[in-house]
Amino acid sequence: MSVVRVGVLGCGNVGAPLCALVGARQGAIAQRTGVRLEVVAVAVRNTAIARPGVNAPLTHDAASIVHNPEVDVIVELIGGIEPARSLILDALKAGKPVITANKELLANCGGELFEAADAAGVDLLFEAAVGGGIPIIRSLRESLQGENILRITGIVNGTTNFILTRMTESGADYADALAEAQQLGYAERDPTADVEGYDAGAKLAILATIAFGQRVVAGDVYREGISGVTASDIEFANRLGYVIKLLAIAEEVGAQVSVRVHPAMIPKGHPLAAVRESFNAVFVEGEAVGQLMFYGRGAGGSPTASAVLGDLIDAAVNLVKGAHASMGTFVEAEIAPIEDLSSPYYLNLEVRDQPGVLAKVANVFGAHSVSIRSLEQEGIGRDARIIFITHEAQERAIQACLADLRTLDVVDRIGSVLRVFGA
Amino acid sequence: MSVVRVGVLGCGNVGAPLCALVGARQGAIAQRTGVRLEVVAVAVRNTAIARPGVNAPLTHDAASIVHNPEVDVIVELIGGIEPARSLILDALKAGKPVITANKELLANCGGELFEAADAAGVDLLFEAAVGGGIPIIRSLRESLQGENILRITGIVNGTTNFILTRMTESGADYADALAEAQQLGYAERDPTADVEGYDAGAKLAILATIAFGQRVVAGDVYREGISGVTASDIEFANRLGYVIKLLAIAEEVGAQVSVRVHPAMIPKGHPLAAVRESFNAVFVEGEAVGQLMFYGRGAGGSPTASAVLGDLIDAAVNLVKGAHASMGTFVEAEIAPIEDLSSPYYLNLEVRDQPGVLAKVANVFGAHSVSIRSLEQEGIGRDARIIFITHEAQERAIQACLADLRTLDVVDRIGSVLRVFGA
Repeated sequence: MSVVRVGVLGCGNVGAPLCALVGARQGAIAQRTGVRLEVVAVAVRNTAIARPGVNAPLTHDAASIVHNPEVDVIVELIGGIEPARSLILDALKAGKPVITANKELLANCGGELFEAADAAGVDLLFEAAVGGGIPIIRSLRESLQGENILRITGIVNGTTNFILTRMTESGADYADALAEAQQLGYAERDPTADVEGYDAGAKLAILATIAFGQRVVAGDVYREGISGVTASDIEFANRLGYVIKLLAIAEEVGAQVSVRVHPAMIPKGHPLAAVRESFNAVFVEGEAVGQLMFYGRGAGGSPTASAVLGDLIDAAVNLVKGAHASMGTFVEAEIAPIEDLSSPYYLNLEVRDQPGVLAKVANVFGAHSVSIRSLEQEGIGRDARIIFITHEAQERAIQACLADLRTLDVVDRIGSVLRVFGA
Repeated sequence: MSVVRVGVLGCGNVGAPLCALVGARQGAIAQRTGVRLEVVAVAVRNTAIARPGVNAPLTHDAASIVHNPEVDVIVELIGGIEPARSLILDALKAGKPVITANKELLANCGGELFEAADAAGVDLLFEAAVGGGIPIIRSLRESLQGENILRITGIVNGTTNFILTRMTESGADYADALAEAQQLGYAERDPTADVEGYDAGAKLAILATIAFGQRVVAGDVYREGISGVTASDIEFANRLGYVIKLLAIAEEVGAQVSVRVHPAMIPKGHPLAAVRESFNAVFVEGEAVGQLMFYGRGAGGSPTASAVLGDLIDAAVNLVKGAHASMGTFVEAEIAPIEDLSSPYYLNLEVRDQPGVLAKVANVFGAHSVSIRSLEQEGIGRDARIIFITHEAQERAIQACLADLRTLDVVDRIGSVLRVFGA
């Protein structure tokens, strides 16, 4: 029986359940793998708080754990860029495998960390950074390493999925659904990082990097949030056979990578449409494997701790064997401009209730060669509107249409413009 | 750059696309892993057939490939017990990693093979044996190795899922849906292995073995097929908010393992209910991770070849590094008798259309302490029937009810008895 001594940096929402989980599963893990995990040091901000289930000594000084020769493996659960980045780099340089759930750090400095891990010849594992307990990173890195991955489409933010589920299932408007999410603890008091797609964007950068073997950072991701989605969009989507989800999409387009986070309409029969509440899912399309989907709890202390534990066992077993997983090499990705995107679009225009409006509007679409697949005219007087779904069109043509539509006196307001996600 | 030389035994539905895939992805794999895969020998039944995409020499003699010192890794795609079993054991003894998609062999002789792999210190990988291209085996073996898995519920047979989807969506009866599946090539001319649950049972034995670290064989699995499911069951299920699926369920019950394949009613909102056509999915419930689902193509040459390739790269990289994945140790599982199962049940009774029938029937349920959650009386005259859903009840109590119901003169026929799958 080999003992592997674990230092945990950060003992909050994930760190505390991780320590408890290691304690509870220690015997079973040792029996299965021949390796006994022992948490021997935990870094915390406040050493005075009682932490049930945490039996290791607490310290303020995370660096002392990293440099302690009695600690074999480091689990980083502090979050944010610094000091997490320096601590991880120091640990790797010291030849210690690192497990991290830090999506912000990986999405911004992943390349640097991957190179440091490869240079040191130790494991850097981060299953918990994307999709909580869902084993998507390992599946991409290992099971699908031979696959030509064409596209990844994720529902990777539980807060926005909860809000959109409420809007869909109870007809709530955005503000009420957000308030409910905040009350239930699914959304922060300042919900910007979730509802504007920053969180999903960081996760997508990590997924795209692993799936395509090309370095994508958070800033590369085109991003629209859900705060503009209205109850009326949800209702029209429903009537047309769609649900609205916040999608994080990465695909290879020739030599470029397109990475984007935005609300989109998905056909009700699509597996992603059935992902409700705060659940996450990642839908993968590969040339040989076809369609795959990975579904589960994308957040929460206990599921995330479970993913950290899976990595921790792997790193510990590798350490005992003297092996490690290689990151491979990553070239910098060339990012496709959003204007090049080709998709069907949904548009919701508030218009004057007078004859000839449709002709004027249709004329704009025709001028930019955007072809209409279906339309509905609705309401009377001040409520009059036209709902379009276009055939596949380029983003730049749609933007040109929108610019022209804004100049028409018969168009009172351009409501939502949503991309339609297809097969 | 290291070269790993691969011998492929069997070049049919999976072997042929595998050879083509290795050829197509060779460069990308080498770039990512530093290992170049080369298929150097292929064993086939008929060497005269042209095999486009297969550039390696063909031979009748599979054993010659296994014993050839110029072959480093063996891929077994022959299927069935012998000669596959002997060939795999010989390869392992010769220190060659083996990748196999052979569910029948693993479900019957898995323990022997696992021990041989561990004794030889080489990889035995079999992702493709369950769920085609879905990376469920690796997720269970690696990502979830620290997790206390409570239950696994799979839709692991595409043929029966196709048939049940057709019955659900077009109202077809069983015979017509089966005929359609046969016409489309989803079902064999003799469909027994699929429709009676043997195929799902073999896959479940493998899943249960890996998930619980206990040896479960195909013969341990309690099994009911779908040939008794009627259009009227499907319709009642729909009205009550359920769909009917053939489920393969493994759970730990105290010190025992319950493994069973049978049709069941699933609430429409459950993620498994949205698994349509010939797709497969495996739903995993873990103590810490909560609910996970893995979805994809459960069969077909190309998805299955993709899973084999993922394993092949892994084994090749390990071989170059001198590492291998350990199987761990497996005790023999103690199987829970089906009579101990506790579940809600759906019953469909054809009864006489006369006063007092319900009282007589209800009396039987009461006598065995089975409590009714809801019931509907339907039809008149010869079509009169009562549909029950019980509260949670023991299988043995339901069987006792059925025995007593058969003695009642007011019960003409006991139609379907289906378990109801809940949260």
